Amino acid sequence: MTRTLYSLCGEDIARPFSPHCWKVVMALHHKGLDFEERRLAFTAIPSAENGVSKTVPILRDGSEVVADSFRIAAYLDEAYPEAPTLFGGEGGVAMARFVEAYSNTVLHPAIARIALLDIHALLGPEDKAYFRESREKRFGKTMEDVVARREEEIAAFPARFEPVRHLVKQQPYLGGENPLFADYIIFGALQWLRVCAGSIFMAKDDPVTLWFERCLDLYNGMARETA
Amino acid sequence: MTRTLYSLCGEDIARPFSPHCWKVVMALHHKGLDFEERRLAFTAIPSAENGVSKTVPILRDGSEVVADSFRIAAYLDEAYPEAPTLFGGEGGVAMARFVEAYSNTVLHPAIARIALLDIHALLGPEDKAYFRESREKRFGKTMEDVVARREEEIAAFPARFEPVRHLVKQQPYLGGENPLFADYIIFGALQWLRVCAGSIFMAKDDPVTLWFERCLDLYNGMARETA
Repeated sequence: MTRTLYSLCGEDIARPFSPHCWKVVMALHHKGLDFEERRLAFTAIPSAENGVSKTVPILRDGSEVVADSFRIAAYLDEAYPEAPTLFGGEGGVAMARFVEAYSNTVLHPAIARIALLDIHALLGPEDKAYFRESREKRFGKTMEDVVARREEEIAAFPARFEPVRHLVKQQPYLGGENPLFADYIIFGALQWLRVCAGSIFMAKDDPVTLWFERCLDLYNGMARETA
Repeated sequence: MTRTLYSLCGEDIARPFSPHCWKVVMALHHKGLDFEERRLAFTAIPSAENGVSKTVPILRDGSEVVADSFRIAAYLDEAYPEAPTLFGGEGGVAMARFVEAYSNTVLHPAIARIALLDIHALLGPEDKAYFRESREKRFGKTMEDVVARREEEIAAFPARFEPVRHLVKQQPYLGGENPLFADYIIFGALQWLRVCAGSIFMAKDDPVTLWFERCLDLYNGMARETA
């Protein structure tokens, strides 16, 4: 096995939760590529591949080392053009960047305001200290203040998916009949919430829930096994 | 001239404002295709091309008649593959659908809550009656109630563009170095607001404003001439 994905985990190595790492796990399955996953605590990331990146995912593929989920997906489509495409061409790459921007600016902040303490609870002692310090610096307030309006965020959460809902009402995936990397970008956000908080806070018959369930079914239900 | 675009106007034929028609005007320029524009009042649309569509844009191209802005763009890319692409491949089509969903579900409702009465003011008497009735039915309230919190909507408006901002901070257009149909989708929404309300309610140095100005400069500043 020459392919290694460095990803993230908390105290329980069996429950990986990082949205960005989930995107790449889905992308590797999409391409039909074998890989070994090495799950690291936050504070162990600098030890991976001689500290090539401050964040995971990092993919080693033979002699290539690539960090950042989007770059990894772009690398996979370039390096393995004969396997199913993750983007469907150059226009698809540009537009997947828009889906990423939407996920990072609309969904991720909302998920943080719901699940920040849930994420923290999954970490080992050393990571807990690192996570609190880095996140309180990023948000400019205590973690408890970030989630102070959790119930309101949960109530407002389904509406944030209106663009996704609009599309998956009409077609099975954002990519059309089949998923593309754009699907895995949004999937990663919801899988993060599902693993950390135990729910995606969406009605069972919501088209977004039905789409998410379709994603969980992909690749022999691989992503569903993590709960 | 064999190409005719049926579009929308108010009482002043020189001030077309429809977001969906603007998307197609930009797309036709992007493809470098000549066309004659026939601007119609809302209540004149059923007379175009024997009532083929209840809405404009409608494009007649030789013997082909296509309605709906997205279908027209897809048709243009298929019919004129040698001209610059509007989507950059199949993945780009799927992803532009997401940008459309975002525009329709996030931007258009916000613009209606700001500019519904401004749009109404641009219409001739017959259209005014049609517009009030159809919009009050759609929104389930009077037009005056729709815009009752106009000032709050204006204050919240720039934040709704956060995914666009995130991207155009890093690259000139949503499409990358050059615009794609996805750019014209968002452009159409802001041009609609600009023509109807006289402002896009965005700071001058906002990356979204700078991107919008770049779009206004395209094709010899053609879209800027409408104000």
